[in-house]
Amino acid sequence: MMEHPENSDEYKGLVVNEGVVNLPQVNPYATFHRKKRVLTADEYVEGILKGDITLLSQAVTLVESNLPSDQAIAQQVIERCLPHAGGSVRVGITGVPGAGKSTFIEALGTELCKQGKHLAVLAIDPSSERSKGSILGDKTRMNELSVQANAFIRPSPSAGSLGGVARKTRETIVLCEAAGFDTILVETVGVGQSETAAHSMVDFFLLLQVTGTGDELQGIKRGIMEMADGIAINKCDGHNVERAQAAKVSFKNALALFPPTESGWKPYAETCSAVEKTGIQEVWKMIEQYIRFTRESGYFDVKRTEQAKYWMYETINSSLLNGFYQNPEMEALTRLMEKKVLNNEISSFIAASELINAYTKRQ
Amino acid sequence: MMEHPENSDEYKGLVVNEGVVNLPQVNPYATFHRKKRVLTADEYVEGILKGDITLLSQAVTLVESNLPSDQAIAQQVIERCLPHAGGSVRVGITGVPGAGKSTFIEALGTELCKQGKHLAVLAIDPSSERSKGSILGDKTRMNELSVQANAFIRPSPSAGSLGGVARKTRETIVLCEAAGFDTILVETVGVGQSETAAHSMVDFFLLLQVTGTGDELQGIKRGIMEMADGIAINKCDGHNVERAQAAKVSFKNALALFPPTESGWKPYAETCSAVEKTGIQEVWKMIEQYIRFTRESGYFDVKRTEQAKYWMYETINSSLLNGFYQNPEMEALTRLMEKKVLNNEISSFIAASELINAYTKRQ
Repeated sequence: MMEHPENSDEYKGLVVNEGVVNLPQVNPYATFHRKKRVLTADEYVEGILKGDITLLSQAVTLVESNLPSDQAIAQQVIERCLPHAGGSVRVGITGVPGAGKSTFIEALGTELCKQGKHLAVLAIDPSSERSKGSILGDKTRMNELSVQANAFIRPSPSAGSLGGVARKTRETIVLCEAAGFDTILVETVGVGQSETAAHSMVDFFLLLQVTGTGDELQGIKRGIMEMADGIAINKCDGHNVERAQAAKVSFKNALALFPPTESGWKPYAETCSAVEKTGIQEVWKMIEQYIRFTRESGYFDVKRTEQAKYWMYETINSSLLNGFYQNPEMEALTRLMEKKVLNNEISSFIAASELINAYTKRQ
Repeated sequence: MMEHPENSDEYKGLVVNEGVVNLPQVNPYATFHRKKRVLTADEYVEGILKGDITLLSQAVTLVESNLPSDQAIAQQVIERCLPHAGGSVRVGITGVPGAGKSTFIEALGTELCKQGKHLAVLAIDPSSERSKGSILGDKTRMNELSVQANAFIRPSPSAGSLGGVARKTRETIVLCEAAGFDTILVETVGVGQSETAAHSMVDFFLLLQVTGTGDELQGIKRGIMEMADGIAINKCDGHNVERAQAAKVSFKNALALFPPTESGWKPYAETCSAVEKTGIQEVWKMIEQYIRFTRESGYFDVKRTEQAKYWMYETINSSLLNGFYQNPEMEALTRLMEKKVLNNEISSFIAASELINAYTKRQ
């Protein structure tokens, strides 16, 4: 599809990443479980369907692993879990660092567990490196939630291409649903491309905002606001309450100016305080309303179908493109052509067709 | 890059289109000029650099033609024109049908011609068919402008894939700039994917709105508002004036809530009446301010560079993807796999990898 310049560059960057960054994953879980014998697909599936968290966790480790042997089993497990998947409500949560995502997810998650929900918390963060402490990487940030029996918290797969990381997260959703989790939260950092990936695997996409002069929007990617099915204005506490209330009104007016959503749902904003645990239930009510609304209209299933199709085509497209971009010869030639284009020596289209010719010849 | 489901589907649709719709173009200009002998690339370039509109128009016809022989000459002409291109201000104008785009462009264009500008008006409308009367197709809609000596109005290339149509429009910009046009307006219908294509070839992207209850946003694609560098609220006349003024304020507040733009420019809204020719100069002042602002910050050139890169990678990517999607075997197999995915018989990722394997084998 036609995209913004920055997108194509991000895509390019992303592809290059895939070549460079995609080293064998250093996943603590992986190394941990690698010591154990790898079970058969049947054993994993059986365990998952029984809701055995240890086996689920080990299976997710296989999903995250880049070892072909692990992937082989992982794909069998996923395929057999598929018929048992799809039964959860999937919620994406994004917001810039500082919006208080972890605290919010802990508050919301604890509330949902109280309600008897079985909650899985996942993340998409291609930039994540254990060393840097990825989102959800540091479980101690979720003391309260991580001790809940009904909660399964899984950090983002380690650094890699967005495509790879997103795929692993989406496959993990399948396993979690097969294991009986009825609510899935997918966290992303609202600064890059992860949101579109998350948006394309969840039912409801929540934008976590904080009040202020507008600076708090720094770093949020334009377009995300129109992607959101709802906005939660966090940190509505202490001296912030009035500003939060005011922000709620402004967002209400702003959202009213947006074109109608495909679903017909009208996104709106709620205030909350993750720290004081206020307004959390209201935010969840908003999500429940949306689910009811889209289930009744049938849009819920339409969207799930679109998403399944999307991931198939997305995967086809990336592998087609990676064949070109991950080829060292082509990479060098591409850099050369890019220079020519930037020096106005050659048109973008001629440069492209020469590259494609070179690529086709060497096959 | 990762995209919305609807995007991947649009892309897919688009690719399929390319296979089906891309018949030899029935372009009245083409048939007209085909009667004449085709000149050499040198003759076209010479004429274009002299500002010969007839030769420019004929060269554009070659750009729009799908005949390999025409394309060969066209690409030579473009390549030689490139060093003389880039000297114009490129403005994209979008808005839903009914926003009054043609009337607005006629009013703005006439004003610019009065100011002594040399104006080229182009369009991107992949759905355009002469029969249906594409945007700008019916020149009589621009009586006043079309008689201006300084104005060059060119309808959208005939129906075809968005990629193809957009490419032709972008190449036409190069020729027009080489012919000495200092202002280029690119019109799109604000309902599909054409906006991202237009957005990626212009310096300033204007969203034409009309006031009202919000219904006027029907059909505008979400995300376009955050793409706009400015909004012109048209039809600010008669009983509409108050509502238009009110809308201006609402948009001002809404835009303030948006994340900052890459350029640091703060988009805002102006009211105007294309019919009464009021506020048109103010809209143009907004565009001039933006150009000055981005020229001073250096963002103007950065964006142009990004766009040139974008088009190179975009062209590479589409040709890589079309090889797969335009292959009849793969098309059949893909439809089959899509069904399996939708029936939850197979995961999106397994389906994709099986398709890719089949594709690689048969090469």
